Amino acid sequence: MDHRGTNLPAVGEYNQTVVLDAIRRRPEGSTRSEIAALTALSVMTVTKVCRRLLDAGLIEEDGMRTGGPGKPAAVVKLNPSGGFAVGVHIDPAAVSYVLVDLSGAIRDHSRTGTPTAGDASAVIEEMAAAIDALIEGSAVDRSRVLGIGIASPGPVTVDDGVILNPPMMPNWHQVALRSSLSEATGLPVLLEKDTTATVIAELWYASPGTRRDFAFMYYGTGLGTGLSLSGDVVRGVSGNAGDAGHITVDPEGEVCTCGRRGCVGYVTVPRVVVERAVRDGLLSTDDLSDVDTALRRLAGLAQSGRPAAVAILSDVARALARAIVVIVNLLDIDEVVFGGPFWASISPVVLPALPDAVGQDPALVSPHPVRILESAIPVDVAAVGAATLMLDNTFSPRPSALLLTAE
Amino acid sequence: MDHRGTNLPAVGEYNQTVVLDAIRRRPEGSTRSEIAALTALSVMTVTKVCRRLLDAGLIEEDGMRTGGPGKPAAVVKLNPSGGFAVGVHIDPAAVSYVLVDLSGAIRDHSRTGTPTAGDASAVIEEMAAAIDALIEGSAVDRSRVLGIGIASPGPVTVDDGVILNPPMMPNWHQVALRSSLSEATGLPVLLEKDTTATVIAELWYASPGTRRDFAFMYYGTGLGTGLSLSGDVVRGVSGNAGDAGHITVDPEGEVCTCGRRGCVGYVTVPRVVVERAVRDGLLSTDDLSDVDTALRRLAGLAQSGRPAAVAILSDVARALARAIVVIVNLLDIDEVVFGGPFWASISPVVLPALPDAVGQDPALVSPHPVRILESAIPVDVAAVGAATLMLDNTFSPRPSALLLTAE
Repeated sequence: MDHRGTNLPAVGEYNQTVVLDAIRRRPEGSTRSEIAALTALSVMTVTKVCRRLLDAGLIEEDGMRTGGPGKPAAVVKLNPSGGFAVGVHIDPAAVSYVLVDLSGAIRDHSRTGTPTAGDASAVIEEMAAAIDALIEGSAVDRSRVLGIGIASPGPVTVDDGVILNPPMMPNWHQVALRSSLSEATGLPVLLEKDTTATVIAELWYASPGTRRDFAFMYYGTGLGTGLSLSGDVVRGVSGNAGDAGHITVDPEGEVCTCGRRGCVGYVTVPRVVVERAVRDGLLSTDDLSDVDTALRRLAGLAQSGRPAAVAILSDVARALARAIVVIVNLLDIDEVVFGGPFWASISPVVLPALPDAVGQDPALVSPHPVRILESAIPVDVAAVGAATLMLDNTFSPRPSALLLTAE
Repeated sequence: MDHRGTNLPAVGEYNQTVVLDAIRRRPEGSTRSEIAALTALSVMTVTKVCRRLLDAGLIEEDGMRTGGPGKPAAVVKLNPSGGFAVGVHIDPAAVSYVLVDLSGAIRDHSRTGTPTAGDASAVIEEMAAAIDALIEGSAVDRSRVLGIGIASPGPVTVDDGVILNPPMMPNWHQVALRSSLSEATGLPVLLEKDTTATVIAELWYASPGTRRDFAFMYYGTGLGTGLSLSGDVVRGVSGNAGDAGHITVDPEGEVCTCGRRGCVGYVTVPRVVVERAVRDGLLSTDDLSDVDTALRRLAGLAQSGRPAAVAILSDVARALARAIVVIVNLLDIDEVVFGGPFWASISPVVLPALPDAVGQDPALVSPHPVRILESAIPVDVAAVGAATLMLDNTFSPRPSALLLTAE
């Protein structure tokens, strides 16, 4: 509950994001009266807002459209080159960089090893150089770059943009990434937990009216779980929502870092799955050096019917399903979206097994079906999500923007 | 994300709920300029809104206040008798009825056994009669009764007000309670899952600025888990959010109704705890007929140091703590509130053990402390919550009320 009155002067700005969002979601272009119908705003208001957006270069006119009884009407579209955002995803295994335009299209991307330095300034310099190279290499107008979004493993402090001590990254402690990177690049920087960024990306790229209440299961070096409720990302009080890793899914499973058996965030992650395949004689110890390829090989063995491989990936599906049931029971969501860098490797075997494993789980309370889907963004979803943080700031109509802070 | 424009005509109504809410939260009374400062509305707007609220009998004037440099200003207060709501809580063990006034004060309450009839119309008649008796007995003006809220075990279909097939209530299937009860009483009826009602009650009764991100652990015949994020109750896509019962908290625990061992919603509920105490020789089989008294006796034995009793309630605390860690990790909330009909019996032993059990859990990811609290409403919290559904409809300013549905 909010206890603040309506901030009427802000309504114009809010309507601007409503119109911009409606235009963005129709790449085929819209007339002003179509936008009015979609947004429940008057044609006069839409016309006024469009004038401002044209002046700012965020949209462009694109011919006329005839249709219905009236005279031909001008069509407006998003100007994809009206603005750009850089997205950075820090993973224990690599740092990914993407440059996206206003339409969300990826213009360029790059990847480096994760800096291991205890020396924070060297890390910042390295990242700033990679970002500069990305912007220059793509030949976009730097003055049109809105800023940089960073998706980081948690825990983070979102307001300060500090990365605390994420698991599996022993040399990262209290890195004040946000302010340092902003200073080094001269661009605004936002930082969010990786799971939050993936959810924002999914909301941004999904068709209107879909993906409102979902969990995003991010299958990377670790397992993250971003959440969207009623179309809004769940950030949590400190920006660290989205850890489902310690849900017990196999009381006889391997011992997790927390000391207990069978946590979903331990028994399903790539390294642990590959290690089991090595122990079971399906893969060799050499495979541990390239987990992604090893996972693919394991999935191939399962698809060709090798029983030990089938058993391992069935256990992964069952483990994921049990965690999903806990989350669905708690939040009454109706979609679960899978993605992340390692997901494609096991998806052909694991995805088909999930709907039944969830739907027939005796612990499932929900009275409605749960759809299991794959992310709209197949590659670099967290980096794209990070870039989307910046676009989202420019675009997304949120009722809360209508509220004044009370004195 | 919402994709709808601002609905300017509704702003007046929204401001009305903002003002009413601000007045309600200051039982000592407020001047119009104080309300303006609290709500960020102009004094002129507040004056206009107050006029309407005075005419409707929802607030009343209460003398003048001098203070500061200006002349004395009129004080307005909520008129508690300006409106009433009936709350009904259906529990497997009993049905509770409460009548609350606009201030949330309980004017009267009653309780009956839970109807076991397969004959739905007999159930409805019985409930309507109990509600009529409650209203008549309390001598309030029936025309001032806003309506009836029902808190029901899930699963429910909130829109139709139908109770599906809740666990532990074998004779309740597809009961269309909302429409039938509205017809029988002539009053509007709202129905929500019990866990949702408890959260709405907690939000309603808590001091402003507190209780924004919390889980409400409802310790009744079963264990329910209501959720509030950013001050809004989490209802879920079908109104059935709030089941944490199948979180595994003890891999060697007793077998739950789902067939797995150690679900928190099985190993911690009153009947199962008392049965264990009987098996351990702490209580006799006679105690099973009055679980509440039996729990109290068990807690007394634990307080006097009886090792077997201490062991049982330590296990309950540990089990609850493990479920809390899963929920906190997922949602990054900072408060957990306990309440419900059986909570007071075990609270003296279990509550003091919880902060350490949660805070020192090796699986806790959250970088901030988690406060463990008791509900602001000690008795009948779900029934009070049900009544609050109706008050909440009248009072609560929600930004979403500002939005039009797009065509």
